[in-house]
Amino acid sequence: MRALVYDSLNSVSLREKPLPSLASPTDAIVKVTKTTICGTDLHIRKGDVATCQPGRTLGHEGVGIIHSTGTSVSRFKQGDRVLISCISSCATCEYCRRGMYSHCTSGGWILGNTIDGTQAEYVRIPHAESSLHLIPDGADDAALVMLSDIFPTGLECGVLNGKVQPGGTVVIVGSGPVGLAAIITAQMYSPSQVIAIDLDAKRLEVARQFGATDTINSAEADAVAKVKALTEGKGADSVIEAVGIPATFDLCQSLLAPGGVLANVGVHGTKVDLHLQNLWDKNIAITTRLVDTATTPMLLKLVQSGKLKPSLLITHRFKLGDMEKAYETFGEASKHGALKVVIDVD
Amino acid sequence: MRALVYDSLNSVSLREKPLPSLASPTDAIVKVTKTTICGTDLHIRKGDVATCQPGRTLGHEGVGIIHSTGTSVSRFKQGDRVLISCISSCATCEYCRRGMYSHCTSGGWILGNTIDGTQAEYVRIPHAESSLHLIPDGADDAALVMLSDIFPTGLECGVLNGKVQPGGTVVIVGSGPVGLAAIITAQMYSPSQVIAIDLDAKRLEVARQFGATDTINSAEADAVAKVKALTEGKGADSVIEAVGIPATFDLCQSLLAPGGVLANVGVHGTKVDLHLQNLWDKNIAITTRLVDTATTPMLLKLVQSGKLKPSLLITHRFKLGDMEKAYETFGEASKHGALKVVIDVD
Amino acid sequence: MRALVYDSLNSVSLREKPLPSLASPTDAIVKVTKTTICGTDLHIRKGDVATCQPGRTLGHEGVGIIHSTGTSVSRFKQGDRVLISCISSCATCEYCRRGMYSHCTSGGWILGNTIDGTQAEYVRIPHAESSLHLIPDGADDAALVMLSDIFPTGLECGVLNGKVQPGGTVVIVGSGPVGLAAIITAQMYSPSQVIAIDLDAKRLEVARQFGATDTINSAEADAVAKVKALTEGKGADSVIEAVGIPATFDLCQSLLAPGGVLANVGVHGTKVDLHLQNLWDKNIAITTRLVDTATTPMLLKLVQSGKLKPSLLITHRFKLGDMEKAYETFGEASKHGALKVVIDVD
Amino acid sequence: MRALVYDSLNSVSLREKPLPSLASPTDAIVKVTKTTICGTDLHIRKGDVATCQPGRTLGHEGVGIIHSTGTSVSRFKQGDRVLISCISSCATCEYCRRGMYSHCTSGGWILGNTIDGTQAEYVRIPHAESSLHLIPDGADDAALVMLSDIFPTGLECGVLNGKVQPGGTVVIVGSGPVGLAAIITAQMYSPSQVIAIDLDAKRLEVARQFGATDTINSAEADAVAKVKALTEGKGADSVIEAVGIPATFDLCQSLLAPGGVLANVGVHGTKVDLHLQNLWDKNIAITTRLVDTATTPMLLKLVQSGKLKPSLLITHRFKLGDMEKAYETFGEASKHGALKVVIDVD
Repeated sequence: MRALVYDSLNSVSLREKPLPSLASPTDAIVKVTKTTICGTDLHIRKGDVATCQPGRTLGHEGVGIIHSTGTSVSRFKQGDRVLISCISSCATCEYCRRGMYSHCTSGGWILGNTIDGTQAEYVRIPHAESSLHLIPDGADDAALVMLSDIFPTGLECGVLNGKVQPGGTVVIVGSGPVGLAAIITAQMYSPSQVIAIDLDAKRLEVARQFGATDTINSAEADAVAKVKALTEGKGADSVIEAVGIPATFDLCQSLLAPGGVLANVGVHGTKVDLHLQNLWDKNIAITTRLVDTATTPMLLKLVQSGKLKPSLLITHRFKLGDMEKAYETFGEASKHGALKVVIDVD
Repeated sequence: MRALVYDSLNSVSLREKPLPSLASPTDAIVKVTKTTICGTDLHIRKGDVATCQPGRTLGHEGVGIIHSTGTSVSRFKQGDRVLISCISSCATCEYCRRGMYSHCTSGGWILGNTIDGTQAEYVRIPHAESSLHLIPDGADDAALVMLSDIFPTGLECGVLNGKVQPGGTVVIVGSGPVGLAAIITAQMYSPSQVIAIDLDAKRLEVARQFGATDTINSAEADAVAKVKALTEGKGADSVIEAVGIPATFDLCQSLLAPGGVLANVGVHGTKVDLHLQNLWDKNIAITTRLVDTATTPMLLKLVQSGKLKPSLLITHRFKLGDMEKAYETFGEASKHGALKVVIDVD
Repeated sequence: MRALVYDSLNSVSLREKPLPSLASPTDAIVKVTKTTICGTDLHIRKGDVATCQPGRTLGHEGVGIIHSTGTSVSRFKQGDRVLISCISSCATCEYCRRGMYSHCTSGGWILGNTIDGTQAEYVRIPHAESSLHLIPDGADDAALVMLSDIFPTGLECGVLNGKVQPGGTVVIVGSGPVGLAAIITAQMYSPSQVIAIDLDAKRLEVARQFGATDTINSAEADAVAKVKALTEGKGADSVIEAVGIPATFDLCQSLLAPGGVLANVGVHGTKVDLHLQNLWDKNIAITTRLVDTATTPMLLKLVQSGKLKPSLLITHRFKLGDMEKAYETFGEASKHGALKVVIDVD
Repeated sequence: MRALVYDSLNSVSLREKPLPSLASPTDAIVKVTKTTICGTDLHIRKGDVATCQPGRTLGHEGVGIIHSTGTSVSRFKQGDRVLISCISSCATCEYCRRGMYSHCTSGGWILGNTIDGTQAEYVRIPHAESSLHLIPDGADDAALVMLSDIFPTGLECGVLNGKVQPGGTVVIVGSGPVGLAAIITAQMYSPSQVIAIDLDAKRLEVARQFGATDTINSAEADAVAKVKALTEGKGADSVIEAVGIPATFDLCQSLLAPGGVLANVGVHGTKVDLHLQNLWDKNIAITTRLVDTATTPMLLKLVQSGKLKPSLLITHRFKLGDMEKAYETFGEASKHGALKVVIDVD
């Protein structure tokens, strides 16, 4: 089969690989029909992810069809259409019992990281019963690929951790794909204001289309002053960091209202300053989270009922054969106006 | 009347002052019977609290008797015994409606700070209906003084913010009075382990007497390694910072289990490092809070029923006339083995 | 001034009365600009509400302008536009501190019940600081009258008590005004299905316009079977009873999914059957509540931001002089296709 | 092997049966070391449980040693000591993902009901990974048998559903074993009052020994009046029904404070009256639950740390050979002063 492989620093390529086979009674082999590329895949290519070694098939998102199942898998059978979660979870370890699937002691984010991933014609899914979700007939596969990672990430790490509530004020710092997923899913909880901050006017235009009530170009304006002006001087109840650098984390701290929450979504490579001298008495919380995909069943219901439209994020589509070109496009997202690219594998 | 006044940098003294009078229909004048000294009073004496100017009567804790009430005060009448909350709250502003009394737009921590306080024979209490609590007959006044500030602080900022739960593991860094209040109140929620960390062997001995299941002297042992050893390598579910310096906040970050909460109680004067590169994917929360004294009615019930014994913290008692000596003793708490000192005003 | 008075059994009339005056430092006198009639007012007219005696000015909903304030009222001043809450609350008693304003020991539902109400040119509001809400400039007064009672009722007693959640299934039994308010406010939490049940085809048509995804005419269909068919055989996560008779409460019990909540909104005059033999092991909850209007500030924000449109419920408008006709129209709501009637007092 | 079998109406006997064998890759066979008898077993004997047919080995509680495991079981190996949960759960179905293990679509309460149970030398446990708990070395097996069912039942259905909180007031109606388990576990949350109501003076004496602060013999006193007298006229915040008949459910409704919760634990065979005419505006909740055993890991930690002593409930011990006598003793618990009987199988 064909698979997109991380070759070496700064290099990925499409290669022939043997089909994966069942390694445990709890595995399933899934024939992938759609997949996508995540910002994390670009990080792997740049050598930022030490756990992912050359030779690895990349990808942790996708939709497909059950090809075969281990002897203890009863929830799925050959031919079932399934959504692949980016998080593999045993469902029974201490962390899984608490819904922290990302910290599963025999799972977590392993697909396209420590085991071969979904950017291939077939993929082996461990703990299949708790790591796959049956797709209802008539669903739009491309849209559902957005539920493998980016929508749960925006929702869980951003919106839920940020305690977005009806009537509340939300600021999202960063209008890349995951920031936009947070903007879209924040609206599930009816905040009165959704303020997007970014340096890129085009992205802010998209943010507005996706439901931001206000946008601030922090290259042009004093973001702190503008947020204060929009919130009666208080700051925001929920501040979502969707970039991952010290400067944006710093900004977020200045945007918090008393009683607010700073929900970190960004992947940070270095320590940051925490201004406890200003925050110690402000009744705030700062949260972090690796997506658990605990909300996937709920998101599936909302997509099915037409209340959530994840396909909004899809700007480009490629065939598996053009996977390398897809990486180029997504790797220079700004130049191409790319948000999420969908790869048609079948 | 006599009152303990902040004179100038590093100086407090007992002086004669006129009796306070009702300034608003919502005020009450309380004849103080017991008060105490808080670590914050020492900070004021050192000039660390810019809002508190020389000439101010100090003190934000106390028990007393209603002397007179404004025309709109109906909950209390002359002669009622009352507990004074360190937080004055209007009960009706946006923050008060959310239980964030510490951020009351016309109150908050003002006693002994921006208005005259409780270390005097009489004190004016604004927003009396929502800032005083009726004391049941037969209660121990000295014990109840601990409910003005230190017990709600340990409970709200430490235990509740730290989400201490039955069966959970709790680390308290710092075994001073507020750390000990956290150790005592943590047990209201039945954690399986309560680990106290301090540099002072005597304080750790007290911590153990007050219910710590394990103690670690961080001057002698690797606190991180010991906490890991005590928690099956995971770290603690709740980590309570009760010191207020960068080194202890740093330590706390290293003690967190996945899914844990770092509840800051300490007053911090400078920024600290936040190791987001280690924490971004660990599903943790960091919380801050100025005590709201929202739990005071609950604490009163537990003291009344004998389930909570705040008098444990009282090591010294003084007369109002010896107030300056009381400051000396509390100011060198370690030398005197002092936890909380009670001042008998009547 | 003119006031709508409950004369005697089955009779109300517009009469001249003296202007109300301040009776306590915490009172405000409000010049009413808009008011409305509640189903409860009809109950009073029928003699069902023992606490409300003949001679009483009716009405507990309205919007107006501050005319005068007691000496301890500082939040409002003459000329301020205010929303009147149907619940008067002191903000400081044990129940108010817990957000249970409806059980305020010196307030609760007293307007138009045990004291004169809002269907008049002027009304005295006790505990003004915590029972009135400032209205932002440019707001639509008529729409805001819906926030005095019916919207908080639908939201608090129905939607919040019913734990409506994203992706969940909600059934509302009864599509009268309060059921419709529940249908509208349920959508703040993004359920995947909102199923309305009623006997009246016209009301179900309105329910569908207001966002019900499915409607069931229980005169024509087996409602239990239809709900089961719509929910994969499980029943609904949230079942909201908005009628108040034994038959509908019975129906609601049959519609509950395992883990579901039956939120009672209806006013019940008799006991009902509870089928514990079926429900004891089903992990369900049944909740009751008198509206606390704790959500009014949040609702105000959502109306201001345009995300909530309470004016949807307004079908008729009358002048105060036509108040008796307004009662007739609202009293035969079905005949007139009436939902809520707004009375222009000014 | 020997097994206690439900023969026919009103008859159980110890019989020889073949050893169970693995039927699925997710099964484990456990050599039982300790078991006990539940009130439900008596109900089966009386023919009250239609799902349990003659020939069935009874018992859903126990501790034992792993004898063999299916091919997909990796969490346990031969020789491991394990606690058997009364609830079998797949961990991955819709209900299990929500922690509602009792409603597992391929599990729930099946042991000693629809499949052979634990009152035998060996038992087959389906879904072993999520239905067994590893027992730490040095634990007291007999005490841990109390964690199979009765302690989680008292805690989950009574204490957690009843929202027992620090400083709150709790009434437990019924001081049988499950009521006593609720009394013991309620104290994990530090209520200020724990009031036990029963008709039997001896049981009330036990309740007091186990931590009840007050007891009411409802044969001798007006329970409603006494509870009101103990709670300043308000009633209780948490009322736990641990009997299961209409009369006690009726009593519970009269004991509720505004804002309180009636947590039903009792197994009810008939409908009951719900006095909605009194409760509709009282902001109360009524909850039901079949134990999910979701709290078992937490309870295990508390037993290990010595903070919870389930052995308090054990009054009698028998050998497996005397199982029929054990049924007689437990069946006439009152006569024998029996609470829980432990059966030594090994």
